[in-house]
Amino acid sequence: MIIDIHGHYTTEPQKLLSFRDKQLAGLADAMRKPATNELGITDEELVASVQPQLKLQKERASDLTIFSPRAAGMAHHVGTEATGIEWTRMSNDLIHRICSLLPDNFAPVGQLPQHPGVPPKNCIPELERLAKLGFVGVNLNPDPAGGYWTDPPLTNKGWWYPLYEKLAELEMTAMIHVTSSCNPVFHYTGAHYINGDTTAFMQLIQGNLFKDFPTLRFVIPHGGGAVPFHWGRYRGLAIEMKKPPLTEHLLKNVFFDTCVYHQAGIDCMARVIPLDNILFASEMLGAVKAVDPESGHNFDDTKRYIDKLDISGADKAKIFEGNARRVYPRLDKRLKERKK
Amino acid sequence: MIIDIHGHYTTEPQKLLSFRDKQLAGLADAMRKPATNELGITDEELVASVQPQLKLQKERASDLTIFSPRAAGMAHHVGTEATGIEWTRMSNDLIHRICSLLPDNFAPVGQLPQHPGVPPKNCIPELERLAKLGFVGVNLNPDPAGGYWTDPPLTNKGWWYPLYEKLAELEMTAMIHVTSSCNPVFHYTGAHYINGDTTAFMQLIQGNLFKDFPTLRFVIPHGGGAVPFHWGRYRGLAIEMKKPPLTEHLLKNVFFDTCVYHQAGIDCMARVIPLDNILFASEMLGAVKAVDPESGHNFDDTKRYIDKLDISGADKAKIFEGNARRVYPRLDKRLKERKK
Repeated sequence: MIIDIHGHYTTEPQKLLSFRDKQLAGLADAMRKPATNELGITDEELVASVQPQLKLQKERASDLTIFSPRAAGMAHHVGTEATGIEWTRMSNDLIHRICSLLPDNFAPVGQLPQHPGVPPKNCIPELERLAKLGFVGVNLNPDPAGGYWTDPPLTNKGWWYPLYEKLAELEMTAMIHVTSSCNPVFHYTGAHYINGDTTAFMQLIQGNLFKDFPTLRFVIPHGGGAVPFHWGRYRGLAIEMKKPPLTEHLLKNVFFDTCVYHQAGIDCMARVIPLDNILFASEMLGAVKAVDPESGHNFDDTKRYIDKLDISGADKAKIFEGNARRVYPRLDKRLKERKK
Repeated sequence: MIIDIHGHYTTEPQKLLSFRDKQLAGLADAMRKPATNELGITDEELVASVQPQLKLQKERASDLTIFSPRAAGMAHHVGTEATGIEWTRMSNDLIHRICSLLPDNFAPVGQLPQHPGVPPKNCIPELERLAKLGFVGVNLNPDPAGGYWTDPPLTNKGWWYPLYEKLAELEMTAMIHVTSSCNPVFHYTGAHYINGDTTAFMQLIQGNLFKDFPTLRFVIPHGGGAVPFHWGRYRGLAIEMKKPPLTEHLLKNVFFDTCVYHQAGIDCMARVIPLDNILFASEMLGAVKAVDPESGHNFDDTKRYIDKLDISGADKAKIFEGNARRVYPRLDKRLKERKK
C-alpha cells in the first residue's frame, strides 16, 4: 500500500473558519464571541469536505493519508493560550471524526495547544486525549512565536523534556512543523516552513537529545528543508562538533518526508539520505497547487518522482509504506487492527 | 583563470580582535575604550595572516579570491551604530590593504555599517568610500538583528531603495549574507546562514524589485540556501503568485555560489539552476574546515565537485570565471586593468 504521511485538512467547512473569526474577534469585543463551540457540522458535510483529497488519492494511486489540521491554521502565536486550547481541541476533533468516518483513507495526527512563552508541558493533557482517541502522532511547532523564534531550541531540557517524555511513553511520532508566519520577512510556505525544518535539524546536531530519548521519533517535513542539499555541510559541522556520524547521532530517530517538488531534488535526497529515513508524502492539498508547465503534472504529485528513482522495488516499498509503519508504530498497530 | 567569489578574512591579526574586545567593553565601562583605532598592523603582518588562504589557492588551483571581512564578525546587532561604523571602516581598511598588497590573489568586497532599526541609507557614505577604494562589491545583511529578523524585507521601498539606487549607480554587486546569530535557536553557519539565503530568495519572488532596478546584481551564497533543492516549490509558488517565470523574474539579477559541500548537492544545483547563474566559490577558510572521511578531501574543496559535473569545458569556464566577470563588473574592470 502507499501511505502519504503528510496531508493537512485545508478544505475545512466554512462553519469552522467562521467560528475562528468570531473566537478571535471576541478577544477585542466580547460581544462577538461565538455563542457555542458546537458547530453543527454533520458527518455528511465532513465527508463532502474531503472529496478533493479522495479524488487525488485515487488519481495518484495512494491509499492512506496521515491527516492533520491545516498547519498554517494552528497559528499558536494568535490569541491567548485559552483560545488556542479551545481551537486545538475543535480542530483535532474534526480530524478524529473524518478519520473515523473514512478509516481506510485517513489516519489522524493532531495539533498541540502550544503558545509562545508557555511551557510545552501544558500540551500534555491534549496529547493524552489524542492518544486515547487513536491519533498516531502530532505536529510539534519549534517556533510558536510564528516567525519571531523567541522560545528555546528543541534540545532545551527544562522546556521540552516533559513533553518528550509523554511522547515517548505514548509512542506518538512528532512531525516538526511550524505554523504561519506573522513576521513579514518570512513567507510561510516559501521561507518559514523550510527554515523551520533546517533550523530544527541543526539544533538536533548541536544537542544529544536521542541519548536521553532513544525511542523518540521526529519527522522533518519538506524533505528536511535545506538539509539533504547541504548534507556535506551538516556532516562536516557534526565532525567539527565531535558528534558521532549523523547516521548514529540522529538518523535512528529523525526522518524526512518527500515533499520536494521536482525530480532533481528527490534524486539528491535519495543519494545522500539513507532510504530507511525517507517517507513518502505530498503535502496535498497544500503548499503548491500549481501544474508544472514543463512536465504537465502537478508539482506536488510527488509519487512520480519516487517512481523515477533509480532504486529497487523493495526500496521504493520502504519509502511508500514500510518506513511509515516503522516510524509511526501507532499507525502500524491501527492498520494491523484493520487487517492491513 | 579560476575566481573564488566567496572568501572571508577569518585569519585576522590578534590586534584587530583585541581592539574589538576593548571597543565593546568600552560600552559598559568607558575606561576600557581603546585609546586609538590605529592598530599598528604592518604590511608584513597582513601578508603573513593570509598565508593559509594563499596555500589553499595554490593547492586547489584557484587564482583569485573575492575577499571580504569575516561574515560573523560583522555582527551588526552588537554595540551601537557608532561602534558599528568604526568597526566597519577598520575591517574594510584591512581588506583594502591586503588586496592592494596581493592584487593577483584577492579582490576586495566590503561590509556595510548596517544596524537594526536604522535605515540602510545610512550606509551610503561607507559604500561610496569603498567604491573609491576600488571595492568590487559589498555584503548586504538581510537581518541586521542577528537572528531576530525585526527589519523589513529586502523589497521594502522606503527602507532599502536609497541603498539600492547607490549600489546600481556604482555598479557594486551585493552578496546577501547574514552575520552571526544572537538567537540561540539558530546556529550561525548551520541554520542562520542557510535560512538567510532561502528567506532572501523568497522575498525577491514576492516582490518586483528588478523591475525598478534592472541592473542591480545580488549573489545568494551557500548555493542559494534551500532554493535549488526546492526549485519546484519556488517555481510553483511564483506561478501561483502570477509572477513571470523565475528565469525572467529573478535570474537576470540573482546568482548563486557553489558553497555546497558535497557532490549530490552541486549536481542538483547544476541540473536546475541555469549555468549562467552559478559562480564558483568555496567560502574557505570558512564554515566547515573538516576533512570528509568518505572522500579524504576537505568538504569545502568545492572545485572537485565542479570538475566532476557532467557539463562542457566551456560551461565550467563560465562557472569558474566568466560568470564572475559578468556579475561583478567592477572586478572585470580591475582584472582588465591588470591585463587579465
